[in-house]
Amino acid sequence: MSKLEEKQISSEYVYCGKVIKVRVDQARIPNGNVTLREVVEHPGGVAIALEDEEGKFFLVTQWRYAQEKEVLEFPAGKREPGEDPLTTAKREIAEETGYTAKDFVNLGEMIPTGAYDSEVIHMYYAKTDSYVGEHFDDDENLVPERMTLAEIVKKIMDREITDGKTMVMALKIQEMKRNG
Amino acid sequence: MSKLEEKQISSEYVYCGKVIKVRVDQARIPNGNVTLREVVEHPGGVAIALEDEEGKFFLVTQWRYAQEKEVLEFPAGKREPGEDPLTTAKREIAEETGYTAKDFVNLGEMIPTGAYDSEVIHMYYAKTDSYVGEHFDDDENLVPERMTLAEIVKKIMDREITDGKTMVMALKIQEMKRNG
Repeated sequence: MSKLEEKQISSEYVYCGKVIKVRVDQARIPNGNVTLREVVEHPGGVAIALEDEEGKFFLVTQWRYAQEKEVLEFPAGKREPGEDPLTTAKREIAEETGYTAKDFVNLGEMIPTGAYDSEVIHMYYAKTDSYVGEHFDDDENLVPERMTLAEIVKKIMDREITDGKTMVMALKIQEMKRNG
Repeated sequence: MSKLEEKQISSEYVYCGKVIKVRVDQARIPNGNVTLREVVEHPGGVAIALEDEEGKFFLVTQWRYAQEKEVLEFPAGKREPGEDPLTTAKREIAEETGYTAKDFVNLGEMIPTGAYDSEVIHMYYAKTDSYVGEHFDDDENLVPERMTLAEIVKKIMDREITDGKTMVMALKIQEMKRNG
């Protein structure tokens, strides 16, 4: 039992949409007081750093509507409810890069913004296997490109790449390669 | 002008709460179709990696209600509307660690989950200056601790630390120190 645990007293959904649900809870905090907690529920996502035979990684530039700008990031997608993250990863990587992948390495989970959002992103590193052709979602517009890990890390340190999962994954892979 | 830009056609707020607002937009995507975009609006946050005179960094364990668990992370807080991020950083670091800070290094911005959320986290690296005493928010319960950068990076590589901003900041600081 955690001394920090906050216990749900009541819960009300205020929005149930296509991707997210939003609820407002009353929660009892450890000092006995009751506080309001807003929670965005999201099914969770996966992101994949896919490396080709030349040591280049697939990235996509996408319009991120909530950010009102283009964002350069590793391919990612959201899980279907209950879907195994590795299954999501294989589907998304085929859709966004056109390749099947092999040699999956689990890079762990990332909590993007845990104060009010249930989302967890499962991160994978994999190698290209065979080309099967891209299949973008209808409402997705992507500009794909490939970069070396050194190029990606430089863009992170230069603050040009600002997507959270992409920074974590590239820096973790670099650390793994350094440690052999 | 971006070829990927999605233009807002209509917008309706479905929830306006304490921390977040949620709106549902109709947007025209580049192929001319209209699609629905759900947007969580958040004022943005700051996070600070504060290093003491012994080379140890301040971390806090918090109950993250939306994640239903304790999360170990660098001190962070959300911006008041219109507040300069560095001002937020100085206030939060005093509240959560009890120290004033100096030698601020801007680690750049992080987009935690840009597909549906407007939040941007501003990240700083700083050194302790003088002790002035903690002052936690009423509904915040934190367990503070201090760790070396090597210990933090090990916990990241071992997938024990999963908070996004904390992983990005620690790995960026390590890269900066390596590069001199």
